[in-house]
Amino acid sequence: MMKAVSIESGEASKAIGHHGVNRGLSVFDLILRIVAIVGTLAGAVAMGTAEQTLPFVTQLVQFSAQYDDFDTFKLFVIVNAIICAYLALSLPFSIYHIMRSRAGKSRILLIFLDAIMLVLLTSGASAAAAIVYLAHNGNSSANWFSICQQYTDFCQRSAGSLIGSFGAMASLVLLIILSAVAISRR
Amino acid sequence: MMKAVSIESGEASKAIGHHGVNRGLSVFDLILRIVAIVGTLAGAVAMGTAEQTLPFVTQLVQFSAQYDDFDTFKLFVIVNAIICAYLALSLPFSIYHIMRSRAGKSRILLIFLDAIMLVLLTSGASAAAAIVYLAHNGNSSANWFSICQQYTDFCQRSAGSLIGSFGAMASLVLLIILSAVAISRR
Repeated sequence: MMKAVSIESGEASKAIGHHGVNRGLSVFDLILRIVAIVGTLAGAVAMGTAEQTLPFVTQLVQFSAQYDDFDTFKLFVIVNAIICAYLALSLPFSIYHIMRSRAGKSRILLIFLDAIMLVLLTSGASAAAAIVYLAHNGNSSANWFSICQQYTDFCQRSAGSLIGSFGAMASLVLLIILSAVAISRR
Repeated sequence: MMKAVSIESGEASKAIGHHGVNRGLSVFDLILRIVAIVGTLAGAVAMGTAEQTLPFVTQLVQFSAQYDDFDTFKLFVIVNAIICAYLALSLPFSIYHIMRSRAGKSRILLIFLDAIMLVLLTSGASAAAAIVYLAHNGNSSANWFSICQQYTDFCQRSAGSLIGSFGAMASLVLLIILSAVAISRR
């Protein structure tokens, strides 16, 4: 009789331990989502406000560069905005997982959407990185000259905006691994 | 007695049905892997052999373009080669899954590695697509002129190589979904 009671209480404390760890994972999930929201928002805003007008004017043209002169940078801003919105919408689910650590189907839905968003963000950020790299280094065989000697501010801003995006990518990778661990522990 | 037997045989046939579907998924997995191998290999070879020398020579220089003049295209070839090698190495696992449809841990390992490779491939292919787009359209504010009027063959080749890569991306997405279905059916 005594033995049976002790086993039961042992199982109960084990179940609480499991719940505790899963709740910890869910809290970490919420924090990572907020980090990714800040990253994508910072990336979109930094790139979206990147513009520079050079202080000299020739007879016909004034030299200026803006993020929307480059289609890839426009895509980058749109992709970051989409992912920022998705992450904001996913926050209630994340909070729900903290309260109900046994929820299963909503976790599977989230891991699936997170993965799609990771691929989308990787695509936008990599394409922008390719153009930023070209802006810094130019390409001699295509006769594309580096524009960063003239447009220093614009280059710094567009390169800086990549940091937020790549930070959000790292957060999404961690989020997917965390969700997979939480699902496998159920 | 009769009832018990009929239930048992019913369960047995259900189990065989499950096995059959899982085996079908594994065969489809193998086919998709082969498609992705062909895609990445074709992408890497088409880009790696893209070069063009223009038929006129000025006093000092002969105009020519090669894939390795563009760092992004170099990256594209390397990424495609890595993923092609990974997929070739994953074929034995895929065949093992056809024979043993209940194997679980190796499926989880593969889904994890497939996801990493998908992100890597997306990154390489998107960066290359950004440069191909620029080569076709140029950019007026950066004074980067389109090079596709001169280097027509080179442009066609590099744009074509993207098709193989994006096809392999689609195959990897399907592979991950298939593996997830197979794991959840176990």
